[in-house]
Amino acid sequence: MRVAIVGIGNSKFGRRTDVNVAELAFESIKQAMDDAGVDKKDIGNVVVGSAGGWYEEALPAVIINEYAGFNSVGTMRVEAACASGSAAVKAAYNSIVSGETDIAMAVGVEKMTEVDTLTSVELIGRAGSYTWEFENYGMTFPAYYALYAVAHMNRYGTTEEDLARVAVKAHHYGSMNPLAQFQKEITVEKVLSSQVVAWPLKLYDACPLTDGSAAVVLASEEAAKKLTDTPVWIKGIGYSSDSANLSKRPDFVGLSATVEAAKRAYAAAKITPEQVDVATCHDCFTIAEIMAYEDLGFCKKGEGARLIRDGETMQGGRIPVNLDGGLKAKGHPIGATGVSMMVEITKQLRQEAGSRQAAIKKGIGLVHNVGGTGHYCYVTVLSRD
Amino acid sequence: MRVAIVGIGNSKFGRRTDVNVAELAFESIKQAMDDAGVDKKDIGNVVVGSAGGWYEEALPAVIINEYAGFNSVGTMRVEAACASGSAAVKAAYNSIVSGETDIAMAVGVEKMTEVDTLTSVELIGRAGSYTWEFENYGMTFPAYYALYAVAHMNRYGTTEEDLARVAVKAHHYGSMNPLAQFQKEITVEKVLSSQVVAWPLKLYDACPLTDGSAAVVLASEEAAKKLTDTPVWIKGIGYSSDSANLSKRPDFVGLSATVEAAKRAYAAAKITPEQVDVATCHDCFTIAEIMAYEDLGFCKKGEGARLIRDGETMQGGRIPVNLDGGLKAKGHPIGATGVSMMVEITKQLRQEAGSRQAAIKKGIGLVHNVGGTGHYCYVTVLSRD
Repeated sequence: MRVAIVGIGNSKFGRRTDVNVAELAFESIKQAMDDAGVDKKDIGNVVVGSAGGWYEEALPAVIINEYAGFNSVGTMRVEAACASGSAAVKAAYNSIVSGETDIAMAVGVEKMTEVDTLTSVELIGRAGSYTWEFENYGMTFPAYYALYAVAHMNRYGTTEEDLARVAVKAHHYGSMNPLAQFQKEITVEKVLSSQVVAWPLKLYDACPLTDGSAAVVLASEEAAKKLTDTPVWIKGIGYSSDSANLSKRPDFVGLSATVEAAKRAYAAAKITPEQVDVATCHDCFTIAEIMAYEDLGFCKKGEGARLIRDGETMQGGRIPVNLDGGLKAKGHPIGATGVSMMVEITKQLRQEAGSRQAAIKKGIGLVHNVGGTGHYCYVTVLSRD
Repeated sequence: MRVAIVGIGNSKFGRRTDVNVAELAFESIKQAMDDAGVDKKDIGNVVVGSAGGWYEEALPAVIINEYAGFNSVGTMRVEAACASGSAAVKAAYNSIVSGETDIAMAVGVEKMTEVDTLTSVELIGRAGSYTWEFENYGMTFPAYYALYAVAHMNRYGTTEEDLARVAVKAHHYGSMNPLAQFQKEITVEKVLSSQVVAWPLKLYDACPLTDGSAAVVLASEEAAKKLTDTPVWIKGIGYSSDSANLSKRPDFVGLSATVEAAKRAYAAAKITPEQVDVATCHDCFTIAEIMAYEDLGFCKKGEGARLIRDGETMQGGRIPVNLDGGLKAKGHPIGATGVSMMVEITKQLRQEAGSRQAAIKKGIGLVHNVGGTGHYCYVTVLSRD
């Protein structure tokens, strides 16, 4: 059965002390329902993607459902660390394919800025192998990706300047996206001179803590055709996972969960990486985006830095990536990120991205969403046809 | 597509300081794989049901996957409060129906006894509408169900003795189940004289905090027929939700989420409540089991107490309920409970429950799993045919 995205919503990302988590989610829910032209009574299942732990409600799904007026619809929360949003879209997609409902919604939300910095370091640090790495070795999250950055620099000659270029690109497109948390251009010099967090990663190599939400309305083919002239089809979903214990990984130059999830998604969608017009990649740290280029097959292993140097992932390049500013500049409200990526690629494929629009040739977009340090990966292929 | 349970596993429930969360989950995973006769390479998706917050790992799915050797399989965690286990089974079921894999696993796990009592009160108290009820009014979880008990007693003449009878039944079957947390018979007098927690609910009206895990292997019809001669088919799943804010509910004598989820499950399975041979009901408090009898249609509204008085929900009765000891005596490791219910009903339908065996006539069993105070409900109909 074919399933399409027929409605999208995305809150302003940033420091959102003006709303509680249900209100924040509702901003996207309302937009997505209006965009799809559906009423709350039309929706048969609501899946909430949220890592939780950052905000007061322990059962966010039911609180959000209630605030949005979905009381009896049925809901659950899905968590796959920073890939929770994509996992929620998959679960909502599954509920349509399984015949439970014709129309479902995936909502991603996180509210992260109300906890103090030390608690944040702990909450994110726990997104590894807690007992082994965090407790025993005191690893924090930037340190995990710093291992990868050092290995990639050592093996392939990727430089600190290359990493900085990813951040500069992100801020460039963030400055063009009114929903983004950061809307100022930065320079390579600014990145290089920013505070070292875990060498070679500096402050500007890392995505921020963010409050935000995003929502998509999904519909079966029959329902989609009644609702919209511009459905964006979910053409294939691939997912994989990997050891949480970095000491068990064979190398630190790429994420095997991405390689595997991408292989499955391309097979399900019956496409090759060359057919992708536009993508969002999981750039929690700058090195993560460079590795993603390679692991997704946008270039060969070791050539990721060349892609950013040559501007191939900018508008007008061979494969534009993160034209919404990415996690780095749009922000990274954990559970919302994967859903927000779907929103962005849907906008791109509908050619509604305004000044940030990519050239759409084959009509195919890709969403790459990683949890932890490649502990989870979900790759979703979207298509106009 | 038809999907069957082809393998089951259930750890010892209780205080399990001898294992960490991954080891605890693996006890059930190993049993379920051995029971199904499958290897880890046969399994294409693992869904973990766990509420979390009680133990150290923030990403339990990937930690459990790794320990069990499922590294690249792909996973996510599902949370629907105390219905997380059933939601995980639904998600694993969906992944087979959607064609992602022929064989999937749902694992439920919780490790709750390592936190101190006050933290437990807070963690469980948050399983309501946190801001409104817990923070503003200081409601704790037993108080939510006490409201229901008082209303039910007032409207239908249900007595404290009737509530006690549910606990006595649970402990009776718990004493016959080597996996149960409590294995001692109790008396109505013992329940009535135990400490009042939130009147009319006393210590023995409440289920305990528990460490435990359960797992089921699910298979497509084609795969199931190769693996086993005793498949237990998932005949229908119904789910619903309700306001988390009790002040918005019309009455306190039943859970509308149960009524709605049951209606959907019966419709999906094309059966009536009269066809159910044996059930597990969500007896987090004794009043919850009495309301469940009514809300699931095992008797008319207001007649639940009569069912327990007349022994109709005992072995040999019209509709035996919780012959495993229920949440009350088997224990209630939040994320594991729904999966453990599937394990029990599978055993019953396979006629492998030994001294606790119900009479199986129509070959149909039912799992009723509630999250929060009826915030979520999942009802699953299982069948030999």
